[in-house]
Amino acid sequence: MGPGPINADPRVLRAMSAQLVGQYDPSMTAYMTETQELYRGVFRTANEATLLVDGTSRAGIEAALVSLLSPGDRVLVPVFGRFGHLLVEIAERCGAEVHTIETEWGTVFTPEQIEAAILEVRPTLLAVVHGDTSTTVAQPLDELGAICRAHDVLFYTDVTASIGGNRFETDAWGLDAVTGGLQKCLGGPSGSAPITLSPRAVAVIESRKSIEAGLRSLDPGDADSEVRAERIRSNYFDLAMILDYWGPKRLNHHTEATTMLYGARECARIILEEGLYETIARHALHGSAMLAGLTGLGLTIFGDLAHKMTNVVAVYIPDGVNGDAVRAELLNDYGIEIGTSFGPLHGKVWRIGTMGYNARKDTVLTTLAALEAVLRRAGVTLTAGGGTGAAQDVYSDAA
Amino acid sequence: MGPGPINADPRVLRAMSAQLVGQYDPSMTAYMTETQELYRGVFRTANEATLLVDGTSRAGIEAALVSLLSPGDRVLVPVFGRFGHLLVEIAERCGAEVHTIETEWGTVFTPEQIEAAILEVRPTLLAVVHGDTSTTVAQPLDELGAICRAHDVLFYTDVTASIGGNRFETDAWGLDAVTGGLQKCLGGPSGSAPITLSPRAVAVIESRKSIEAGLRSLDPGDADSEVRAERIRSNYFDLAMILDYWGPKRLNHHTEATTMLYGARECARIILEEGLYETIARHALHGSAMLAGLTGLGLTIFGDLAHKMTNVVAVYIPDGVNGDAVRAELLNDYGIEIGTSFGPLHGKVWRIGTMGYNARKDTVLTTLAALEAVLRRAGVTLTAGGGTGAAQDVYSDAA
Repeated sequence: MGPGPINADPRVLRAMSAQLVGQYDPSMTAYMTETQELYRGVFRTANEATLLVDGTSRAGIEAALVSLLSPGDRVLVPVFGRFGHLLVEIAERCGAEVHTIETEWGTVFTPEQIEAAILEVRPTLLAVVHGDTSTTVAQPLDELGAICRAHDVLFYTDVTASIGGNRFETDAWGLDAVTGGLQKCLGGPSGSAPITLSPRAVAVIESRKSIEAGLRSLDPGDADSEVRAERIRSNYFDLAMILDYWGPKRLNHHTEATTMLYGARECARIILEEGLYETIARHALHGSAMLAGLTGLGLTIFGDLAHKMTNVVAVYIPDGVNGDAVRAELLNDYGIEIGTSFGPLHGKVWRIGTMGYNARKDTVLTTLAALEAVLRRAGVTLTAGGGTGAAQDVYSDAA
Repeated sequence: MGPGPINADPRVLRAMSAQLVGQYDPSMTAYMTETQELYRGVFRTANEATLLVDGTSRAGIEAALVSLLSPGDRVLVPVFGRFGHLLVEIAERCGAEVHTIETEWGTVFTPEQIEAAILEVRPTLLAVVHGDTSTTVAQPLDELGAICRAHDVLFYTDVTASIGGNRFETDAWGLDAVTGGLQKCLGGPSGSAPITLSPRAVAVIESRKSIEAGLRSLDPGDADSEVRAERIRSNYFDLAMILDYWGPKRLNHHTEATTMLYGARECARIILEEGLYETIARHALHGSAMLAGLTGLGLTIFGDLAHKMTNVVAVYIPDGVNGDAVRAELLNDYGIEIGTSFGPLHGKVWRIGTMGYNARKDTVLTTLAALEAVLRRAGVTLTAGGGTGAAQDVYSDAA
């Protein structure tokens, strides 16, 4: 019940135990094509360029940034938590000129603040995290696409923490690049990063395309594809090459991580079978029950609740309580993991997730019951049954 | 029965269906520590810095090169196949000054040729593929460590294609950095890259260390770790950070790909239970049987047999035969995949693997029987039973 990775859906684990097939076996390439279509559904996009990057979510982030940003390009990163800092860090390593605006952890920016910064910085790319698990809040993105378009700025976001549990619309919100991961609301393991790119983003990436020497030798036409703009600084994360591998050319790049592909495919199948909006509503229900339960125990919630993600909550550690000792007792005696926190919140809040396969009534109620018992042993005065009672009220009201 | 990825060992697939645990759950960190020790056994090293990079084998290559090479560093790459070109390509993108020597596909270099090039180029790093599946041969490395040490050159190799099926000794051969992958002789899926680094390589990497801003804020001591040398150009592949994540600090970096870790761990457990040298001997036996069988069918083998890897063989497509049609018939009618080839060998040879879980008598014999049947239908004149008969002779001699 931490902020991710969480228990994977058993269906995903079963899918990942399927035997491998060859990299160009027709059934394998059919799985790749099917997975692209499934993630168009999850991302809410018609983008042809929708695929998986073989690595954890930060691999997807780096692939997007290193492919979109040439050294010296200006990028604007609004930072409202740890993962904003990560975007800054990765963009800097891409050689970009990085500009930031910052807001207190637990709050978000207004569209006006972001537009003002765009006018000042004149970036080629706006890079902003959607939901930042470090603070539990999500930056509203729905008005930013139009602002970016008006000022000719590419618009990129990472939705690892939010996708599947919170409303997100790639096309309707005007996103040019979106990256995610399986280990939160998608209910899978870390290790595959779904990504989608608008035609505008693809055009930027294609302009930086090159083809590996070991593959180039027999097709003279490939000479046309030699380096034109500044070459992408990474081979592994070169989305132009990865697009040729996933596209009709099927030009060899890495050896696709077959088992992770099976997992990513099953994550999307589960969500689209339940219905994307139904999955989001399930996260909203169980997240509300957890929030009500923690409040019902007399604990104080961190952050701007108006922008809180459905799938994670940060709660202040009561005065005089050793946060790590409580976490250890929950894990060792109850088999329940809750999360610590980073940076300015370290030692101040716990983070509790209700996401993916763990967004269920039984997990919410057992976590609240266990937390009550552990906190009472730690000397905290609590309303007996206040947590589970308040959560049950949420479920009754929803029924 | 292609050159990889191959069928995974069912034990690996079962291990990968285990439920996830939290990133800092004591059982997870124990698995990480255990996996490091297992790969010390596979790599034949005492290197403390032995761990997994979360991505396919080329992710491991890029992590090694981008972490070891600063822009402008000179690197020497002896190229004897497609994957030599890949090392060149990745090193160029790291901003290194890349020098190559080349030899015809199917042959290898003498130590004298490599030493002469080192003396001419004076590189900081020698980067050479061990076994190159594109040509089926392995470059002898056992004399190169001493040469590198004598000239103060770091020595890096990629063993994705060879490890577990061919003798390889990290420490005895004087390697400073070694990268691999699971999808060949280790019998697992692509998606995790085991890597080992000598103390000398770690010192170079540590000199380029930085710590993420989102993690840095609360520990004033971290300021000491600010950028000293040229910062590593990638966050995801920053081995200094990845070492802090796998080391006693457990400093958060990416979210470890738990399921891939389970798989990588099981691959190593299987090999070390069988015995590393016994596993190599098994590959040698079945590789010899396949080679004898193909010869017994009257086909011609490609490449320098003195340096051929045990686990893959390239065989000329007979004149007048459509290589892709034969591969399609083998796959569609017999369920057996064999490989095509790249670059100068494209359309000229098939590549057939006997590796990992597929290095077995039954797979060798059924492949030879099926190939005979398909080639006869394609109009090739063959000795009836010549393939399976020759393979059986190898097995009888070995018994």
